[in-house]
Amino acid sequence: MSHPVSPLAPAKSPQLPAIAGVRLAARECNVRYKNRTDVMLMELAPGTTIAGVLTRSQTRSAPVDLCRKHLKGGKARAILVNSGNSNAFTGKAGIASVERCVKATVGALKCKPSEIFIASTGVIGEPMADERITANLPAMVKDLRGDAWADAAAAIMTTDTFPKLATRTAKIGDATVTINGIAKGSGMIAPDMATMLAFVATDAKIPAPVLQELLARGADRSFNSITVDGDTSTSDTLLLAATGQAAKHPKPKSAGDKVLKDFRRALEDLLADLAIQVVKDGEGASKLVTIDVSGAATARAARRIGLAIANSPLVKTAIAGEDANWGRIVMAVGKSGEKADRDKLSIAIGGVTITKKGQRVPDYDEAPVAAHIKGRDIRIAVNVGVGKGTARVWTCDLTHGYIEINADYRS
Amino acid sequence: MSHPVSPLAPAKSPQLPAIAGVRLAARECNVRYKNRTDVMLMELAPGTTIAGVLTRSQTRSAPVDLCRKHLKGGKARAILVNSGNSNAFTGKAGIASVERCVKATVGALKCKPSEIFIASTGVIGEPMADERITANLPAMVKDLRGDAWADAAAAIMTTDTFPKLATRTAKIGDATVTINGIAKGSGMIAPDMATMLAFVATDAKIPAPVLQELLARGADRSFNSITVDGDTSTSDTLLLAATGQAAKHPKPKSAGDKVLKDFRRALEDLLADLAIQVVKDGEGASKLVTIDVSGAATARAARRIGLAIANSPLVKTAIAGEDANWGRIVMAVGKSGEKADRDKLSIAIGGVTITKKGQRVPDYDEAPVAAHIKGRDIRIAVNVGVGKGTARVWTCDLTHGYIEINADYRS
Repeated sequence: MSHPVSPLAPAKSPQLPAIAGVRLAARECNVRYKNRTDVMLMELAPGTTIAGVLTRSQTRSAPVDLCRKHLKGGKARAILVNSGNSNAFTGKAGIASVERCVKATVGALKCKPSEIFIASTGVIGEPMADERITANLPAMVKDLRGDAWADAAAAIMTTDTFPKLATRTAKIGDATVTINGIAKGSGMIAPDMATMLAFVATDAKIPAPVLQELLARGADRSFNSITVDGDTSTSDTLLLAATGQAAKHPKPKSAGDKVLKDFRRALEDLLADLAIQVVKDGEGASKLVTIDVSGAATARAARRIGLAIANSPLVKTAIAGEDANWGRIVMAVGKSGEKADRDKLSIAIGGVTITKKGQRVPDYDEAPVAAHIKGRDIRIAVNVGVGKGTARVWTCDLTHGYIEINADYRS
Repeated sequence: MSHPVSPLAPAKSPQLPAIAGVRLAARECNVRYKNRTDVMLMELAPGTTIAGVLTRSQTRSAPVDLCRKHLKGGKARAILVNSGNSNAFTGKAGIASVERCVKATVGALKCKPSEIFIASTGVIGEPMADERITANLPAMVKDLRGDAWADAAAAIMTTDTFPKLATRTAKIGDATVTINGIAKGSGMIAPDMATMLAFVATDAKIPAPVLQELLARGADRSFNSITVDGDTSTSDTLLLAATGQAAKHPKPKSAGDKVLKDFRRALEDLLADLAIQVVKDGEGASKLVTIDVSGAATARAARRIGLAIANSPLVKTAIAGEDANWGRIVMAVGKSGEKADRDKLSIAIGGVTITKKGQRVPDYDEAPVAAHIKGRDIRIAVNVGVGKGTARVWTCDLTHGYIEINADYRS
């Protein structure tokens, strides 16, 4: 069931430094997978604040419901994650399973239940073998180490073909703070589905409401701006923890506070890095596609137009076939439901203007566009001619690999 | 560039009877294709009323704009259709081309410009060789025949693997009226796109506003309830003409008039027949999938949930792989954006209940579901547990054939 490593995978994974107040452990618990780690525990020092962005699916999993509830407290002592079983669509049994995991973690770390966060990814609708997780918790607590980020990233993978890690530093006042993040997605094995999980931690000291606003803004420009196939997981979870253990720095009053300028840049950069890694590991992906939309009524409209292009099977198959088929981009703009002026629409691929004012430029030469589309890094720019809204969206192409992963292999 | 005939194609095409007041001709005009007919002219008797449903794409074609304008008059004398060039995204040149076609048809048939309707399907953004159409018009007028429905259906095909025809009769009062229809879609060849065109005619005598209401209602339950890949054409055009040449019958006062009861049934049945033929010819289709949604807040919500399932690449690849992967249906319901109660959701495949009240039934036996999913005619039923809205939606599976048609072959 394992697939070849994505041709878009980074040549080597970044080395993540330790972050004061964060310790990690990964373990082989056989929740569903064999012969690999499948549970990750991230311990956070007392006083850690937390923020989260969760799936809006109406059929979200029991762990997602727990995270939403616990985020109200704004404090975290542990994040417990398993791969292999998403504990989604498991009814009351699923809720009881989450409660047992919380209780066991509280016992192992001596903290409050509201400080525990849980995420699960894998098969849907199957009873969760949570006793395999809880039985291993004492051993995992003993294993906790500050430098186990790579182990943690590996333990949360499902059909990912490479682990996803990123690190950045930023200045807050005179203090240097670090931000580390890991993510998984969006591989699938029947009967699993695309699931995006990401866990980010920093040693900066930031109040939970400010952290939440920073994360929501960053997520919009990263994880909410990527798509592989337009399907939304029941488990999507992005958490950001701040331990406050870095050197003393000014206390930020709001997300827009000047003192956070460099931190905002670093956080958004890290989130985009992780999100792009997810796209690069999209099922069957052979090309990364970056779509810039401008001239929309609002930024939100621009993102919707970008996602309409990014989700179009016709656009994605054309790119897979290395066909500079810009007519399909015209179609996708038209179907987005957002305002666009057909007679002002301009489209460029690889920096070459193909259409202007609603028709093909008279001297259009396909040769440089055809050359660009043979590469791995495809750039599409669209101006829809009605306003000033802009957005950037990322996707991958739609290849035979996608069908192979999702249809040819049986559960 | 031709593809094998869909395994879902009907064993033989129906024979369509002549309809009083309708004559047709098809001709090889070489607009883009060679060695096949590519232009169809439908002549309608004086007094014919007309109704239409057109694409809502923001990047619709010049012929779609013309149809929208001429529908206001409610009268029709001719429908002129070409395949090979969609005349979309062609700017002022495209509008001028449509005007020349109208003028030539007016000259050939001696009628008003507002009584001419035009539809085009094929490549986007290429200048239209309309002189090849207009030069052939006098010969086509000479060729007009009442029994040329099959020729007309063949001339409007693009990458369709079979022509699509349907016929019904209905009683209005004591009079028997006939309804004939032809359609094309949804094949694609780079750089073409999915385009749905359908032309329906009857000898009933129905005022244009009543005809419009009947068609809008019928389209919602047929062409607006099918999807192949979720991509919306710039050219979608469905026209319904009523010649009024049948035996005398009571004049209907409204679309809901009792006298139209049997006609409504026949029309909706014919539209659904044509729409399902389009799905059966979806690119790479190996299975027809019928999705019944119930328990939604409204009928509109039910249709959106049905289309979310029908458009999900994960659901469609699972069906292609003959995998009874009901977890992906849970996911698709959750992402639809419509209200659904996770804890009341029930799902059945092939008539076998798999989930009830938000979890898998305790005695679920996959064997009969696995057997059902190996067939060509897949049935999915979902109750989302919040209201009384229902809808039926049709789609096909997503196979390697789709990728081959849309990526592997270059323009």
